[in-house]
Amino acid sequence: MGETSKRLLSALVMVVFFLVAFLYAGFYYIDLFFFGGFIIYFGLREFYDFSHREESQAFRGIGYFYSLIIYLVYYFQFMGVQQNIRPPSWVLDISGLFNTSGFSPVIALLVLLVMTSFLLQIIKRPLDGALMSVASTVLATLYIVIPIGHFLLLLGLPYGEYYVFLVCVITIISDAGAYFGGRWFGKNPAGLKVSPKKTWEGYVTGNISAVLCVQLLNYLWITFASDTELPLGLLESILLSIVISFISVIGDLAESGLKRDAKIKDSASIIPGHGGMLDLADALLFTIPSIYYYFKFKEVLGFPV
Amino acid sequence: MGETSKRLLSALVMVVFFLVAFLYAGFYYIDLFFFGGFIIYFGLREFYDFSHREESQAFRGIGYFYSLIIYLVYYFQFMGVQQNIRPPSWVLDISGLFNTSGFSPVIALLVLLVMTSFLLQIIKRPLDGALMSVASTVLATLYIVIPIGHFLLLLGLPYGEYYVFLVCVITIISDAGAYFGGRWFGKNPAGLKVSPKKTWEGYVTGNISAVLCVQLLNYLWITFASDTELPLGLLESILLSIVISFISVIGDLAESGLKRDAKIKDSASIIPGHGGMLDLADALLFTIPSIYYYFKFKEVLGFPV
Repeated sequence: MGETSKRLLSALVMVVFFLVAFLYAGFYYIDLFFFGGFIIYFGLREFYDFSHREESQAFRGIGYFYSLIIYLVYYFQFMGVQQNIRPPSWVLDISGLFNTSGFSPVIALLVLLVMTSFLLQIIKRPLDGALMSVASTVLATLYIVIPIGHFLLLLGLPYGEYYVFLVCVITIISDAGAYFGGRWFGKNPAGLKVSPKKTWEGYVTGNISAVLCVQLLNYLWITFASDTELPLGLLESILLSIVISFISVIGDLAESGLKRDAKIKDSASIIPGHGGMLDLADALLFTIPSIYYYFKFKEVLGFPV
Repeated sequence: MGETSKRLLSALVMVVFFLVAFLYAGFYYIDLFFFGGFIIYFGLREFYDFSHREESQAFRGIGYFYSLIIYLVYYFQFMGVQQNIRPPSWVLDISGLFNTSGFSPVIALLVLLVMTSFLLQIIKRPLDGALMSVASTVLATLYIVIPIGHFLLLLGLPYGEYYVFLVCVITIISDAGAYFGGRWFGKNPAGLKVSPKKTWEGYVTGNISAVLCVQLLNYLWITFASDTELPLGLLESILLSIVISFISVIGDLAESGLKRDAKIKDSASIIPGHGGMLDLADALLFTIPSIYYYFKFKEVLGFPV
């Protein structure tokens, strides 16, 4: 089987898993929780490998531990805001504590993660590499867990299911469009040292494909989904597609930069045709929080979302 | 003038400045805002110097920029919760946006900081040191700005002024007690490679001094301050003093670890007898958020704070 067909086939399998996980609300979205947890675990593992240097290394145990707690906080927040199922009252009680205004348990946990990493550094590796070890432990959680947590928050918004489709369509089509656009029309290199083979033609194809596919998504959504209206207008959806498509390219290049820095080609080889988890999720790690805060900020300003 | 008297004298000057800044509420605590901003600016500058390596360097401009915005968010949150002055309505409007439940502008800004740092890395320094450059930019803000922001939140709690005295007394007395205890009784090294001269006798003296001085503070507060009651009992105040004193030691050692890693002796020499801003503030960066979340968590659980 060729590389492209392998890539397409394994993408298809994942899309099916993913659709089941986030559209099936039974059992308190526990399948979605594990799907996200799976991405977080392998993503962190690859990131920790990236950060391994002669003098320094992330504090893996404590990183996994705090990442799990932070992810659980997002899961409980999500349980409190989503409208599809009615969780047990103790879950809502915990969620209520986390949704108190002015109290952000995630910031508290990030501060604790910083302090605990420094403590381990002092006790276990007192002399060299302190800054790199502590900083890479903290960045791993910020870079991977916070975005996956925001996936749950995004799904918890009133039009959440539409938003999840929206961000996935933009991100996946931008990437696929750039890949095929580059292969078919690619002539002029974009001049990025971190990814020297990428061409302008590829990026433009990706961006235009994303804009068009979002319009197709909107048409299908209005026609077939239960909602008859969309929470965003035509011009807004075009501009948003362009910006999020651009952000997805940055996410892709960011991960390439990490790999180049670590002198690694693929982040791992757990997904046939794609490489590692981070190779696959890199763009989503940037587009999910971006689109969430766009809609959340609209909501805070009083627009319907 | 000897090193000790220099140290004591400049500490005295700073304490006076500090008392004016946080007890004088006029002009919307603008003096306190600048006092905190001053600490943040010099703290970041020293941290960025620590992170300078052959291949990597923090993104200073973007680090200062996001740090300022995050600090402003804390300032507006503080304006919304403190009870001493009545800010203009537009300030309360902004504060209301930031205090919406489930919306944390600080997390949004941290995510943006990660994304912007990666973007700069790709454009300006595509090849080496990506992880260290991005991670140290992000850690600088988490390590310095978030704690100083929490100082404002702590002051904004109902018993805020007492809490500020409490955390300062524990942190300063722990440090001073360890310094003099080490000089007077120091015999057995604590065996910490990061700070080989520190002794057990010093640490124990610091811890006991902190516990005793908190009881003195409580006595003075009940006798002379306007409140006649304290929001915490005797046993609670003793246990809290011991734990926070221990955390202040970790904060002190964490900064020593950063200096040792960077092969620097003093973080800078802007404060006579103390060295740099981080040499002075290191312990507070850990104790302020710890004590804030202790009381905030009590409040969320329904206890009076």
